[in-house]
Amino acid sequence: MPDNSADAHAHAETPPPPYWAVIFTSTRNEKDEEGYAAMAARMVDLAARQPGYLGIESVRGQGGLGITVSYWKTLEAIAKWKQNAEHLEAQRLGRERWYESFKLRVARVERAGNWLFSGILATAD
Amino acid sequence: MPDNSADAHAHAETPPPPYWAVIFTSTRNEKDEEGYAAMAARMVDLAARQPGYLGIESVRGQGGLGITVSYWKTLEAIAKWKQNAEHLEAQRLGRERWYESFKLRVARVERAGNWLFSGILATAD
Repeated sequence: MPDNSADAHAHAETPPPPYWAVIFTSTRNEKDEEGYAAMAARMVDLAARQPGYLGIESVRGQGGLGITVSYWKTLEAIAKWKQNAEHLEAQRLGRERWYESFKLRVARVERAGNWLFSGILATAD
Repeated sequence: MPDNSADAHAHAETPPPPYWAVIFTSTRNEKDEEGYAAMAARMVDLAARQPGYLGIESVRGQGGLGITVSYWKTLEAIAKWKQNAEHLEAQRLGRERWYESFKLRVARVERAGNWLFSGILATAD
């Protein structure tokens, strides 16, 4: 596990594609900030220990929208993480206590790089 | 164009998959906040007018990491937006003035929904 595995507030160092991204967007209610923050940090730590985990990036803005993108080697790794017992409990609490709304998208990363100018449709990064 | 097309701080309303996501993560330097904010808002507006645009979600955290996810019907739509003249100029300024680092990932969204409990690997949402 890399030293920065629990750091969700920096770029994730991911291998060359293909791999998978879980894009989780949410809006918070105004309740229980402390409990929510503790659970969010715990989930970042726990995710980093799962098989197939590649990295995570997470930001919550002052406007209330949060975006967390976690990266995984395979769809199977995502499914297993989703079924992790402690994670299931966090999901239940999220739905009951903390989130006003949320949306999940599962996407296959096909290209990745630091280009802004090179051809986005080119095969190489 | 929907009324909220320029609102990047809420959930994007996207059609059923498949479609494409551009995950743009960046860290800002501390320079020219005003110029950056104006350009960022302009790009959100401009993106919303491109063919194939589906939506955008954007957050910058207090820690400095920003995550912007834009959604597109096709890879070709992404390539065209990338080559938009005004957008090219914004990209140049971003690289020269505003970003300390950035990373782009292009991903094909395969599943989307509000589930936390239903089977993530199920065919239906």
